[in-house]
This record gives sequence, structure tokens and C-alpha cells, in this order.
Amino acid sequence: MKQLTVELGERSYPIYIGDGLLSRAAELFERHGIGKGSPLLVVTDTAVGPHYLAALTEALQSGGYRVATHTVEAGEKSKSLEMLDAIVATALEAGLDRKSTIVALGGGVVGDLAGFAAASFMRGVRFVQVPTTILAHDSSVGGKVAVNHRLAKNIIGAFHQPELVLYDTATLLTLPPREVRSGLAEMVKHGLIWNASFVDWLDANAPKLLALDPEALQYGLYEGCKVKAHVVAADEREDDLRAILNLGHTIGHALEAVAGYGELLHGEAIAIGMVGAAKLAGRLGYASEIYDVTKRLLKRFELPVQLPAHLDTDAIMAAMSHDKKFKEGRMVFIVPTAIGKVEINKSVQADWVREIVDELKGES
Amino acid sequence: MKQLTVELGERSYPIYIGDGLLSRAAELFERHGIGKGSPLLVVTDTAVGPHYLAALTEALQSGGYRVATHTVEAGEKSKSLEMLDAIVATALEAGLDRKSTIVALGGGVVGDLAGFAAASFMRGVRFVQVPTTILAHDSSVGGKVAVNHRLAKNIIGAFHQPELVLYDTATLLTLPPREVRSGLAEMVKHGLIWNASFVDWLDANAPKLLALDPEALQYGLYEGCKVKAHVVAADEREDDLRAILNLGHTIGHALEAVAGYGELLHGEAIAIGMVGAAKLAGRLGYASEIYDVTKRLLKRFELPVQLPAHLDTDAIMAAMSHDKKFKEGRMVFIVPTAIGKVEINKSVQADWVREIVDELKGES
Ligand SMILES: NC(=O)c1ccc[n+]([C@@H]2O[C@H](COP(=O)([O-])OP(=O)(O)OC[C@H]3O[C@@H](n4cnc5c(N)ncnc54)[C@H](O)[C@@H]3O)[C@@H](O)[C@H]2O)c1
Ligand SMILES: NC(=O)c1ccc[n+]([C@@H]2O[C@H](COP(=O)([O-])OP(=O)(O)OC[C@H]3O[C@@H](n4cnc5c(N)ncnc54)[C@H](O)[C@@H]3O)[C@@H](O)[C@H]2O)c1
Ligand SMILES: [Zn+2]
Ligand SMILES: [Zn+2]
Repeated sequence: MKQLTVELGERSYPIYIGDGLLSRAAELFERHGIGKGSPLLVVTDTAVGPHYLAALTEALQSGGYRVATHTVEAGEKSKSLEMLDAIVATALEAGLDRKSTIVALGGGVVGDLAGFAAASFMRGVRFVQVPTTILAHDSSVGGKVAVNHRLAKNIIGAFHQPELVLYDTATLLTLPPREVRSGLAEMVKHGLIWNASFVDWLDANAPKLLALDPEALQYGLYEGCKVKAHVVAADEREDDLRAILNLGHTIGHALEAVAGYGELLHGEAIAIGMVGAAKLAGRLGYASEIYDVTKRLLKRFELPVQLPAHLDTDAIMAAMSHDKKFKEGRMVFIVPTAIGKVEINKSVQADWVREIVDELKGES
Repeated sequence: MKQLTVELGERSYPIYIGDGLLSRAAELFERHGIGKGSPLLVVTDTAVGPHYLAALTEALQSGGYRVATHTVEAGEKSKSLEMLDAIVATALEAGLDRKSTIVALGGGVVGDLAGFAAASFMRGVRFVQVPTTILAHDSSVGGKVAVNHRLAKNIIGAFHQPELVLYDTATLLTLPPREVRSGLAEMVKHGLIWNASFVDWLDANAPKLLALDPEALQYGLYEGCKVKAHVVAADEREDDLRAILNLGHTIGHALEAVAGYGELLHGEAIAIGMVGAAKLAGRLGYASEIYDVTKRLLKRFELPVQLPAHLDTDAIMAAMSHDKKFKEGRMVFIVPTAIGKVEINKSVQADWVREIVDELKGES
């Protein structure tokens, strides 16, 4: 088992990563002050629940916890105010009170939804994350929780830090391979923005990670969480440094919006976005190695590097401008300046970005 | 104009109380750091909007602010996730961003709803309260914001402090008289829990307050806010002291729940509740003066002191136990121990409370 701490003063919390941790839930919950006097509510989804809900519930119950459960449909659509309403109904019916804890068992969708429920139920109760996707090594660090609105993603939410994160790598074995790769894209991102030796390690261990080797997963998730935790600790409320986590996301978000959710998974979209950022680095005069390494790494992880040609460049550019990153032909962009280093460039020429979007359609 | 500060460290904020303050909105917004680069959203309701929305909007616009507006139906029903959804739609369509401010123009309903919108839109934007009821001298201090769920009131919310509160006593002139009296009940409560000389002043000035005399209102709202601000500053997250604000509310909330919202306004319900608490004080051996003064004061404000006889005592007791204040025949109760002083009594006999509920039906 590996352990790290997200340093946020009195809101600091530990992340445990290990093979088979679900069975140790009661002990770890107890260690971190989750009381047994009030019922817990475990929120999960229809893809995760059948595999792991009983195991988690039983582990907690045998440790003396009272546990209620709520299952939402798998998928992004469940990040909604309607589902929040339904979770609150379950919480009330199960007798949760202000000393209760809401537990997210699932990927980023369940984490964001249950986390917002924990942030707002009775104006805030305790929260525990039990991530079951690789992508969730990203979403479980930083305390950002939210639901979507029909007009915008993640627009209604809060900052609400968990009491602990319990990452059982064994749960990843049932994750669909495309979701595995998508999650690894965020891991690659964490290397590229902060840690060149982690990038080397990722390069060497791509096959093991793709095969869900438990030790490789433990190490990769640990290092990925560590980068995110470090950035978040330095900038909890997203004033400045935290923006570097958006490497690949300016183009990535625009692709997701234009493609319609589903065609491109989040990690796939940001993989293409990271290639775009690497190209921009080249135009800005940074080492060509950046582009070479980025692209090779993503290919090692069987992630797309080519932008689907049928996506309209105008629409992509419009989606980016919607993102409020434009000002008079200039935009904010996270640009790699070396492997393991990025800058927040606040005046990238929008027409360069357009050219790069077009180039990405021919990438291979 | 009177001014006080709610002392909450770096979240401290001022409350301005005065006659005609709406016209000074731009100046006061600017003084407290509300920028003009991003649009504001003013939320109001259908009873308040026709009187004051144009005045506030024009005052802000003539000071250089861009202002969007959103009007909800007057009434408790608007404190819902559906209305939150609608406000977020307006906010997005109006181009609000993370530097925007949401302004509540109205009573406690609009304050709680717009406040929760401010707490959760983009994970939190700035918030200003422009209260238009007397009751809102209570709801605008303390940062509690929330919406209701069909199963429970105020169950989905946050703590979100405003940047400032701008209390224009002139807006109170259109408030229906029953709402005036209801709001004054909370003012009486603030005297009874904390400040005996304010109780004397209230006694002497009841007619002026009922007649909405601007100077009396200014002073009464100021002193009422001061008590609440003091308690909140000592206990922002409601761990202990803040419970004293619940004088009259244990019975009061139960009455509201059993009567069905509408028969009793909140202030009316807590007026009856405060008489109940004063009776309890007598049983516990505290001075009989408490009961005499409490009752006389409430009558001076034309507030009910008698519990409607048709409300079922069992149902009232059940509603209280739902409130989680029960444990083995004992309950938590805020009990006056002198005029201007209360205690948090954690083991009041539930059967005494039942007897008092019955007695209150014969009160006159
Ligand atoms: N809060 C943050 O900081 C943050 C950061 C990044 C992403 N996010 C959010 O995270 C979400 C994406 O997260 P995600 O990729 O984990 O999505 P997800 O939770 O939807 O999981 C992807 C799919 O895999 C299924 N699944 C999850 N774990 C499984 C398992 N162990 N076995 C079998 N199936 C499993 C899910 O049911 C779902 O169908 C988005 O909503 C995004 O906005 C949040
Ligand atoms: N957040 C807190 O700390 C806190 C504290 C106490 C009460 N509350 C909440 O406050 C709400 C009650 O507040 P309220 O009594 O102000 O209710 P309210 O906002 O519903 O106002 C009462 C009625 O008067 C109308 N009105 C308001 N101002 C008016 C004006 N100037 N002229 C004409 N009509 C006007 C309203 O439209 C409404 O119909 C409840 O939802 C309660 O839960 C919150
Ligand atoms: Zn991402
Ligand atoms: Zn009240």
C-alpha cells in the first residue's frame, strides 16, 4: 500500500492506494474520524455497483457502520441537479444527519455528484472518495465537486475536500479498456506538467499500465496524485498555478463539446489537446523534443493524436472562445516549455491555435 | 445611515442600514470591491420586483455596472433546485463569470435562494444581500443559504457570506403588515436571547416599529443584526453558541410543519414558541418575569401567543422528534434564564414540553 497526504492545512487528507483496500474500509474510515453514530450513504452507479457495492458495504458493516446506498445510472448525465435531489431523498429517508458521511464509489461522475451532495446536504457533511477509474486519480484530488447544467458542464458545484481517499487498484480490473486508456491520458498529463522522470517511467511502463499490473498502477496513480496534490496545495481555490492542470484541456474541452459527449472520451480529447499544446511549444521556440516525446508517449498508451477530420474548425474555435480564454485575438494557453515543465501563456495568438487545429487533423 | 460589521476574519463584511440606500447602491458596491468588468445578476421575486427592481438596476447601471435580472415567484416554493437551475440558466445567458456577483433583492426566500446560487454557481461567486423584509435582518446575517427539498426545509445549502448587506428601510413600506409583525418576532427574539436593554427599547418603541417609522426601524434592525452578528462571529459553523438563535424555534418549526406552511408565518410560529420557552423557564425555576415580559412584548407587536387549538399535540410532538432533538424522553431546548439571557438545556423532559404545548392552546 502507498499513502500520500494532500496538504491543505486543517483540511489535509490522506490518499491510500493499494490492491484490495476495499476490505480495509472500516479500519481506514475509523482511523480518519468517520464516526459510527450516524449512518453513511454510499453513492455508486449502475456499472460499478454490481461489482463492488456489496463488498464495500459489507466491509463497512462488519466494522460496525450503518450503511445506506444510492445507485445512479452510469454516465455523465447523472451529474445533474435531479440526481442530487434523489440522493438527498435517500439520505433523509436513511436518517443521515450532520455527522454522517457520503461516500463516492465510482469514477469521476460519481465522485463529482456525491461530492456535491456531501458539500450541500445540510450545508455540508463529510465526504470520502473510493475511486474506481484511473481518471479519478485526477478528480479525487483537489476538492472540486459539481453537477452539470444543460447549458454548461460542472457549472454548479463547490470546493469540498474529502476526509480520505481509498483507492483500491483491484477495482480497476473491470474498467473497460477504453476508459483505462482515457484515464492514463491524465496520468501522462501529470508527468508532462511537472515531473520529467515520471515521464520516463511512464514511457517504460506503458505496457504494464495498460495491462493493469497492480504494482505499476500503484506507482503511477501515486505519482499522478502527488503532482496534482502538490499543485492544489499551492493553489486550492484556483487562482493561478492550478491552471497548469489544464494542459491539453483548452483544445480538449472544445473537442468534447463539438464532438458531442461520447465520440471522444475526456482523456482522448485531452490527448489530442496535448499534442496541440506541444505543437504550440514548437512555434514558440521551445525544444522540438517536447512534441516528439508527447506524441510518442500518447501512442504508447494507444491514445489518439489525430483530431477527427469531420469536426469543424470554426466550431472548435467558437467553443474555445466560449471558454472565456480569448481577448482580442489572444488566448490563455498552457504551453510545455520542456518535458515536465509548462508555462501559463496569456497571449497566444488565436490564429496560431486555429492553424494547429487544422494541422492536428492530419496528424498520425 | 447606520453601519455594523460582521466579524468573520477575512470574510468579514459590513451591513449598511438606512433610508433610501438603494439609490447609493453603486457607490457602496464599489467601495466593497464589486468590480464592473463582469455582469451582475439581481435575483428578486414577483412581489418585490415591481416595487424596487428598476430602482436598484438603474442605480447600479448609472454607476457603470452591467446588470442582468431574474425574477422568481414570490413565496417559499421558490426555494427549490428547479429555481436554482433557472437562475443558472439566466446567469450563463447573461455572460456571468467567476468575477461576477449575484445580488438578492427581497426577503429571506430570495436571500436564501440567490445566496445558494452564488455559493454554487461556478463553485462560488460573490454575493450581496439587499433585504426587503424585517425578517431578513435575521437571514442576511450568518451566511446560511439553502433551498428546500420536498422532504425537508433548508436541507440543500451552504455557508456563503455576502460581500455586503445593503438594507434600505424605505423598501419596508410596502411590506404587508402581517409580514412586518412576523419579522418583528425575530427582532424580539434577538433582544430576549442577548440584550435586556434592547428588550426595554422594543417595549417602548413597538408602536413606532409597527408604523414603520424609519428611525425606529434603523435602530431596531441595527440592534437585531448586532446580536445575530455577535453570535455568528463567535460560532460561524454552528457548533454550539449559535444554537441560542433557536429560541422559540423548536416549537415554532413543529407548528409550521404541522399547520402546513401558510397558516402560520414563521415569526408567528416562533412567537408562540417563545411563549412556550418562557413557560418552560418557569418550570425550571427561573424568574416568572421572563414569561410576563415575553408575552407582553409579543402582544405589543400584535403577534399570536396562543397555539391554534386544532393543531394536534401528537403531531406537534412527532414533528419535534423529527428535528433530532430527542433522546430517551429528553430534548434540547433553548430556555431563557433571565430577560436577555438563555441557556442551551440538553435534557428537557419531553413530557413537560407536551404539557406546555397543550397549555399554549389555552393561552390568551
Ligand atoms: N472534480 C475534478 O477535479 C475532476 C477532474 C477531472 C474529471 N472530472 C469529472 O470526472 C468525470 C469523468 O470521470 P471518469 O472518466 O472516471 O468517468 P465515469 O465516472 O463516468 O466512469 C467512466 C465509465 O466507467 C464506468 N466504471 C467506473 N469504474 C468502473 C469499474 N471499476 N469497472 C467497470 N466500470 C467502471 C462508469 O460507470 C462509467 O460508465 C467527468 O464528469 C469529469 O467532469 C472531475
Ligand atoms: N438564512 C437564514 O439564516 C435564515 C434565517 C431566517 C429565515 N430564513 C428563511 O427566510 C425565509 C422567510 O423570509 P421572509 O419572511 O423574508 O420571507 P419572504 O422572502 O417570502 O417574504 C415574505 C413575503 O413578502 C414579500 N415581500 C418581501 N419584501 C417585500 C416588500 N418590501 N414589499 C412587499 N412585499 C414584500 C415576499 O414576496 C413574500 O411574499 C424562509 O424561507 C426562511 O427559511 C433564513
Ligand atoms: Zn481532465
Ligand atoms: Zn427564525
